[in-house]
Amino acid sequence: MLNQQDTAEALPHQAVKANPVVAIVGATGAVGVELLESLAARDFPLSGLKLLASARSAGKTMRFRDQELTVETLTEDSFEGVDLALFSAGSGISKRYAAAAVKAGAVVVDNSSAFRMDADVPLVVPEVNAAAIARHRGIIANPNCVAIIATVPLAPLREKLNLKRVTAATYQAASGAGAAAMEELRASTEAYLKGEAFEPKVLPHPYAFNLFSHNAEMDEENGYNGEELKVIQETRRILDMPALPIGITCIRVPVLRAHAIALTLEFDAPVTPEEVRAILAEAPGVKLVDDRARNHFPMPSEASGQGDVLAGRIRTDLGDPSGRSIALFVAGDQLLKGAALNAVQIAEKLLQR
Amino acid sequence: MLNQQDTAEALPHQAVKANPVVAIVGATGAVGVELLESLAARDFPLSGLKLLASARSAGKTMRFRDQELTVETLTEDSFEGVDLALFSAGSGISKRYAAAAVKAGAVVVDNSSAFRMDADVPLVVPEVNAAAIARHRGIIANPNCVAIIATVPLAPLREKLNLKRVTAATYQAASGAGAAAMEELRASTEAYLKGEAFEPKVLPHPYAFNLFSHNAEMDEENGYNGEELKVIQETRRILDMPALPIGITCIRVPVLRAHAIALTLEFDAPVTPEEVRAILAEAPGVKLVDDRARNHFPMPSEASGQGDVLAGRIRTDLGDPSGRSIALFVAGDQLLKGAALNAVQIAEKLLQR
Repeated sequence: MLNQQDTAEALPHQAVKANPVVAIVGATGAVGVELLESLAARDFPLSGLKLLASARSAGKTMRFRDQELTVETLTEDSFEGVDLALFSAGSGISKRYAAAAVKAGAVVVDNSSAFRMDADVPLVVPEVNAAAIARHRGIIANPNCVAIIATVPLAPLREKLNLKRVTAATYQAASGAGAAAMEELRASTEAYLKGEAFEPKVLPHPYAFNLFSHNAEMDEENGYNGEELKVIQETRRILDMPALPIGITCIRVPVLRAHAIALTLEFDAPVTPEEVRAILAEAPGVKLVDDRARNHFPMPSEASGQGDVLAGRIRTDLGDPSGRSIALFVAGDQLLKGAALNAVQIAEKLLQR
Repeated sequence: MLNQQDTAEALPHQAVKANPVVAIVGATGAVGVELLESLAARDFPLSGLKLLASARSAGKTMRFRDQELTVETLTEDSFEGVDLALFSAGSGISKRYAAAAVKAGAVVVDNSSAFRMDADVPLVVPEVNAAAIARHRGIIANPNCVAIIATVPLAPLREKLNLKRVTAATYQAASGAGAAAMEELRASTEAYLKGEAFEPKVLPHPYAFNLFSHNAEMDEENGYNGEELKVIQETRRILDMPALPIGITCIRVPVLRAHAIALTLEFDAPVTPEEVRAILAEAPGVKLVDDRARNHFPMPSEASGQGDVLAGRIRTDLGDPSGRSIALFVAGDQLLKGAALNAVQIAEKLLQR
């Protein structure tokens, strides 16, 4: 088991005060909506909630518990009196406004990629490396959604087995590209079924009943896209294995909100599916869905709306005759554990007890 | 290059006579329809065409070139006067009727899995192992669609480089489960978009905006499903590499008719993406779609309707620091190269010249 002690207790000056005033930056986005849901669903003990977004969204109202809250325009002065700021409005906004939030006395949990590889910023999946939260200097980064969904099952395995190599192929939902991409998937599919033309606006390729290599910018030198490079770097950092070899192909599939990953894991000694299954059965944040008799394994439709990462199809990799490799298939809600829920779980660890 | 000589010339008694009478068994199915299309599109020189199906479909008419043909009920007497029988009605039908066709003097090209691992039956992808056709004793097997789409690019690579291991994750379209599964994907997606309930009938899990582990029967001992085991066995047989280690995860995605595969290939010595790209650029049946600058790579929407297997995302696998592994992404039309077109290409090789 990993050390999951509440580090906020050890370093109280870095904790967030009990019953904090919380701000959500990017409240009207796909993740923003789920941040409100997760705060409510987990009875997060807050004394005030401020919803911030671009001027375009200001004035909209959103429901939180039994209140109607009005969205305000984000400015550098938005953080007065805020104790905890949850950012989810893209890395440009985070780079521009996170410092103002910290200066105003807030601790920032940032869902963008802006600070994830900054050595001063902890990159945290609470089930994996909650202890890293203690090192924060005002900002804690919420990892890439695929990195979160992969590391939740990888961490308990590498704790008990010596992990040598990861090969991954992803099946990524529209939600990872935001609410507009989810709407484009719906609208383009509807047009396709009616036999009507549809011009993609959000994504670079037709999405209805189609899939394509992830639309993040490509490193033309090495042939990996930005999403793949993020997953590699962040997975290494979260697992504290800076040299772990990871090969990955990130593919956008026509699914609305949960990601899946086909994983092949190589260890330094032979390992059985039973050992892996036993470890994952006890792992925090993992739910085994591995019923061979009923052909029932992780699916986006069942991962959607739940906080656990589903893991199954656990078997010996027939591609490695040495018996040192295991294949498995996982699925997790990109908007919840892959984004909003993980951020709220980080925030919970920050609270003064 | 592989030996692709027309073996029918070498062994004329095993060839099909010029301008044969052709029968299609399972003419009204998803692959049957494409068999008609492929015969027409390739100007296959036939002197007669007989459409056979179950009694349920008998009496239907189907268009071939400028003719309306009436579908007849398949019986053991259906093959009188038939020179070439293309079977695509499931392995039960092939097991029951292929012998009658051979007895009547026809050569059978069978799209089912009935005879694929029978040592007396050649398993053929014409670009890869056309020479094997010469060994037929009346039946030639058309491989599993994933095995075809994978071996078209794998074969030229293993000819020039020593292939040691394959790791694959598939993105398989509805078409692989037949016309009814394609209709279920359409109908369930339409229902989802309208907010209506839909009860799956053809596939075991909800398909609208969802994906799931391939629905083939599971080997409960080793945890691989029948589709994965077919791909492993058939790929080894087609490549004539009986011990090639292959690890594979087969996933059904909500795409209508083209399959994609994320492949990681390990060779016995370091290899560069440029070497692999150069080999695939000249490989028969492969079309490079590998434009990093425009983020344009193989997609089902572009693979659909064309005979080539699209290959791209060719890059060094960052999971193997030795530099001996290459990752790539391929897509091919499951109904064409993965089924009907490959069968017609086999038939062309059989024709007496």
